[in-house]
Amino acid sequence: MSMRATVEATPNIAVVKYWGKRDETLILPTHSSLSFTMDETLCTRTTVVFSPKFRQDELWLNGQQMDLQDKETAERFGMLELIRKQAGIRHKAKIASLNGFPTAAGFASSAAGMAALACAASKAAGLDLNAKDLSILARLGSGSACRSVMGGCVEWKAGKKADGSDSYAEQVAPASHWPELRNVIAVVDAKKKKVSSRSGMKQTIRTSALYPARVSYIPVLMRDIKAAIQSKDFPAFGELTMREAMNMHAVMLDTWPPIVYLNDYSKEIMYAVNEYNQAAGKIKAAYTFDAGPNAHVYTTDDQAANVRKMLQSIDGVKKIITCKVGNGPQYLKNGHLLEEDGTAIAHQYVEGKGIVKT
Amino acid sequence: MSMRATVEATPNIAVVKYWGKRDETLILPTHSSLSFTMDETLCTRTTVVFSPKFRQDELWLNGQQMDLQDKETAERFGMLELIRKQAGIRHKAKIASLNGFPTAAGFASSAAGMAALACAASKAAGLDLNAKDLSILARLGSGSACRSVMGGCVEWKAGKKADGSDSYAEQVAPASHWPELRNVIAVVDAKKKKVSSRSGMKQTIRTSALYPARVSYIPVLMRDIKAAIQSKDFPAFGELTMREAMNMHAVMLDTWPPIVYLNDYSKEIMYAVNEYNQAAGKIKAAYTFDAGPNAHVYTTDDQAANVRKMLQSIDGVKKIITCKVGNGPQYLKNGHLLEEDGTAIAHQYVEGKGIVKT
Repeated sequence: MSMRATVEATPNIAVVKYWGKRDETLILPTHSSLSFTMDETLCTRTTVVFSPKFRQDELWLNGQQMDLQDKETAERFGMLELIRKQAGIRHKAKIASLNGFPTAAGFASSAAGMAALACAASKAAGLDLNAKDLSILARLGSGSACRSVMGGCVEWKAGKKADGSDSYAEQVAPASHWPELRNVIAVVDAKKKKVSSRSGMKQTIRTSALYPARVSYIPVLMRDIKAAIQSKDFPAFGELTMREAMNMHAVMLDTWPPIVYLNDYSKEIMYAVNEYNQAAGKIKAAYTFDAGPNAHVYTTDDQAANVRKMLQSIDGVKKIITCKVGNGPQYLKNGHLLEEDGTAIAHQYVEGKGIVKT
Repeated sequence: MSMRATVEATPNIAVVKYWGKRDETLILPTHSSLSFTMDETLCTRTTVVFSPKFRQDELWLNGQQMDLQDKETAERFGMLELIRKQAGIRHKAKIASLNGFPTAAGFASSAAGMAALACAASKAAGLDLNAKDLSILARLGSGSACRSVMGGCVEWKAGKKADGSDSYAEQVAPASHWPELRNVIAVVDAKKKKVSSRSGMKQTIRTSALYPARVSYIPVLMRDIKAAIQSKDFPAFGELTMREAMNMHAVMLDTWPPIVYLNDYSKEIMYAVNEYNQAAGKIKAAYTFDAGPNAHVYTTDDQAANVRKMLQSIDGVKKIITCKVGNGPQYLKNGHLLEEDGTAIAHQYVEGKGIVKT
């Protein structure tokens, strides 16, 4: 019997950001967050094989073997043990994962990667989990990954329970609800290496005098932005998206020592988007920034070409990628990255073609 | 009888920033603030002459006549009317003001200028006001100017009264208390024109979800930083200074539309100062930033040469100026910028020499 599964998952780009944990081990957030799962323009493919013949768990990321003894990697892959326990198996696993997007694009692939792992590993182990349980597994790998186990607009409910059983993702609207929505990503030059978000958010909670005000503000914002999304009111959605992004970057700046992810190019993009909206007489494009200087500019299909043109004209923007909202993880029947015996099947990402066999 | 006075006043650099008014007309702040008045390295000289022969108030800034009908200028110079009323005169005034620091240095000269005006105009009108009353006059010209009417470390008490009579400056410590203190100013390249702080702070109060948390945090900070200054505990003073600066820039970023004064050079300076302190094993230098990208790095005399060297090595730093803490406004007997009949006496600022007659 085959114990292999391959899944492609995609990143999600939050409009209400996750920044801060109430529980470091279970990865439980201090407040809820909200994102759109992207389409397959950016994806991560992961194959998991379980076999009684394997002596140990092994992992390859983009063709390179990783050390599963490394503390952070071990934490991220802790979900494997839970899956084995639930499936009643003791087999070791071989895992291969490949990013299907331009290298050096500066994207955090952890959300897509951990969502793909949760889906592929549980499927390979013979489990048939629902989206809620998958999201809890993915959350244990990387908090925001829980929102990538389903498509469309997704809320990660903070929950209140100490065991984390009420901290999971739930779809607010399917991808089909707002098919006109686009995310135009501007990848910019970045000199400085970034502070990891895992340690950064810990510092924010510990040191920012403003952080509690952010946590109090989120529930109001969540209500308003979900209403704007439900009614497809782009100007309202866009303003809340931009304000929320800056709110997060503000508490980062208020952290000691300060965390500064935005750079002068990010700032140029902010000004350009504001001017674009002013010229239009209403908000037609809305920037957001994760833990890095790249801009994600949400807009609608009728504006996308102009928004791309505007972003292309900005000094420091070195690449532009446009995504739609996607349907969430896809279980593949072909295109496995590993044979059933665990040997590698060479694949690579080719721009314009996606992940192809080599 | 001569109704002329000439005063040199100097800027102050806040360690607890002023950002937000509870009353726009009387310029009453939402919270207290704290600064050091700089020495004469950076100064503004102002001469005021009152005469029954003058037909109208006239003002020259750096040799250029200004329009006193302009709304913002008229507001700033509203204190003239109060002074005339208090002195029981109806004479019009001629005013000349000259900045005694490198042009294009990007400094806000309004604090020094308005402090010099309050002192010179009240003196010329024959009033002998105490520091508290002078600070209230200066406050009406430009909020933070009230802290420049005295030397050393100065607190601007927010006050609670609607008429502003309890919102004035008070010396916390004279310049002689901490003679080792230095402010090493790094002037950096700045591309974007800045949002005026007057309109910026109004927007912050109106839109920032985090601002109330800043206002609640200030009293605790004020207590702690005054204690650090009293005991000349540089590491404690430095940490609080840096955290407070970022707290202000955080609420600016959280403003809608966002206000971003810091740029990549400011960020480089922040990183360099942090590294400097890490190498030293404790905080020996502390950055602060006003409504602009220039850094003010507080340090002590034994560190000043190294701090200058560190700042000089940073790309984008185009000028470095070192100040000590100063004694506040000086009343000059010579060096008037206007004759008693109001005609100009040509002066100019020469780097290295200060303000000289031409």
